[in-house]
Amino acid sequence: MCAMAAATRPDAETLAEVGEFGLIERLRPIFDGGPDVLIGPGDDAAVLRIRTGHVVVSTDLMVAGRHFRSEWVSASDVGHRAAAENLSDINAMGGRATALTIGLAAPGDLPVSWALEFAQGFAEECAKVGATVVGGDLSGSETLTVAVTVLGACTVAPVVRSGAEPGDVVALCGRQGWSAAGLAVLGRGFRSPRALVEAYQRPEPPYDAGPIAADAGATAMIDVSDGLVADAGHLAAASDVAIELRTEALPVAEQLSAVASALGIDPMRFVLGGGEDHPLLATFAEAAAVPEGWRVIGSVTEGSGVTVDGSPYDGPSGWSHF
Amino acid sequence: MCAMAAATRPDAETLAEVGEFGLIERLRPIFDGGPDVLIGPGDDAAVLRIRTGHVVVSTDLMVAGRHFRSEWVSASDVGHRAAAENLSDINAMGGRATALTIGLAAPGDLPVSWALEFAQGFAEECAKVGATVVGGDLSGSETLTVAVTVLGACTVAPVVRSGAEPGDVVALCGRQGWSAAGLAVLGRGFRSPRALVEAYQRPEPPYDAGPIAADAGATAMIDVSDGLVADAGHLAAASDVAIELRTEALPVAEQLSAVASALGIDPMRFVLGGGEDHPLLATFAEAAAVPEGWRVIGSVTEGSGVTVDGSPYDGPSGWSHF
Repeated sequence: MCAMAAATRPDAETLAEVGEFGLIERLRPIFDGGPDVLIGPGDDAAVLRIRTGHVVVSTDLMVAGRHFRSEWVSASDVGHRAAAENLSDINAMGGRATALTIGLAAPGDLPVSWALEFAQGFAEECAKVGATVVGGDLSGSETLTVAVTVLGACTVAPVVRSGAEPGDVVALCGRQGWSAAGLAVLGRGFRSPRALVEAYQRPEPPYDAGPIAADAGATAMIDVSDGLVADAGHLAAASDVAIELRTEALPVAEQLSAVASALGIDPMRFVLGGGEDHPLLATFAEAAAVPEGWRVIGSVTEGSGVTVDGSPYDGPSGWSHF
Repeated sequence: MCAMAAATRPDAETLAEVGEFGLIERLRPIFDGGPDVLIGPGDDAAVLRIRTGHVVVSTDLMVAGRHFRSEWVSASDVGHRAAAENLSDINAMGGRATALTIGLAAPGDLPVSWALEFAQGFAEECAKVGATVVGGDLSGSETLTVAVTVLGACTVAPVVRSGAEPGDVVALCGRQGWSAAGLAVLGRGFRSPRALVEAYQRPEPPYDAGPIAADAGATAMIDVSDGLVADAGHLAAASDVAIELRTEALPVAEQLSAVASALGIDPMRFVLGGGEDHPLLATFAEAAAVPEGWRVIGSVTEGSGVTVDGSPYDGPSGWSHF
């Protein structure tokens, strides 16, 4: 019996009982079409109108026990998280998401209610940016796995990771370290501070920030999903530059400090090492170009790698994927 | 240790050893861009030029032990199968695939060589239609899972499942039952007839047939992945019609007959019940409209459901997904 099933009543209706097509029938009302959905779910493929001459596309996997632990997140949370992670990838290109597909591989004893609550959470997160689910696939699997692909569009040129140049400033938009602190709290058996736990359960990427940064001329951009230093390193490597971060410029929320203090660690470990909050990290040619709501946290120089206050970062690094 | 690792030498380099980014570096040369790939793999998202005003999109999951058994298919075969299954969905809309994303969730002890051979097979299958891989994601998982999303385009209106009308003829293009017979052979410990085993390992969907049928005015179309009767049933349900199939019109290859005879079963069970060959099943307003290479195998009438030679089909039905 899977962990999710164990949390519900033993007579809960399962995926194996209703089958793929029974589940699809129940999912359909949750995923209703949008204005540009010419053919929605239910055929061999969906068809979308594309008005922009291009699509921005990204895909992400979430695996139970690796990307989330079902005792710490509800089915709805998993839906929010899976959608947010993908929507954020379009945000990081300076675009807006329009359509998504979902692949759900799940044990046959997963309650139907879990799948429906997951779908509801997913749809709610997509609604924040006006995106809709246009297709999907269901499969049995020993391992609960969510595979999402997101399509979107930009109104100006997409912002890639590789455009940063020495002399640029580095700026951050969105909260950072909250999810990691929430996870640390949960890992020790606590459920508060509530704001941090909720940040882990349902990240809140700044969905407007990507298009605004693109409009403002961001030279490079990435979403912080692995960790601030790790993703700054990805941007630096793609741009063939070095990035210097200054901790004095990094905000540390009061609740982060409180948790770090209780755990006897430096709160900056959450901020520098934590992932999954999905703020945006971008570079701009000058500080005057940085949009409102962004905070300048460092600068781009010649060289390679990331330094924090002038030194290599020796804290926990980014997420290990295997 | 996963089954694939067990099949290779114990010192084979594993995904856990090279890590996500190490593997991505080795995958990149296999997936080189195409003319409409504006931004390829390696950023937060890929960007594709869309010249047609629309995209056709579909997604499919393949789970080891459910959709394939690794003792019967090589890593390259799994790549071919995963690509073919998705490319076929675009074919079934009358379109051509242009771009794909791959999510690969795999145990950390999976040999790197498995992932590279999988990717090579996947790329080879995509090359048959000129499509390219533009992005992906990698994750650890206890269960080897391949999640693919495919994008494509149609030159005429997409052909949906719901357009069949009473009086239409039903036609099939592509071999049918071969994969199921190949699986039956493998399941009994044999490796021949080679053509059937290979049909299971690497299906050969008729990729030109979909666009040709759309041009010819097909009224409805579906790819046969679950089973001929099962998928005819999906088309009938979507169109709110009945479909009558005639077995005398269904080709039975000599090798199919030989295997069925050896197993003491009716070869028509493979043809009617088997899936995964990915031929196309379509309806046309009249027999004169049916393109070359297609075979008329039945007709559309008022009512619901599928009959075979005038009777309900009582053989094994389609694939069970949970």
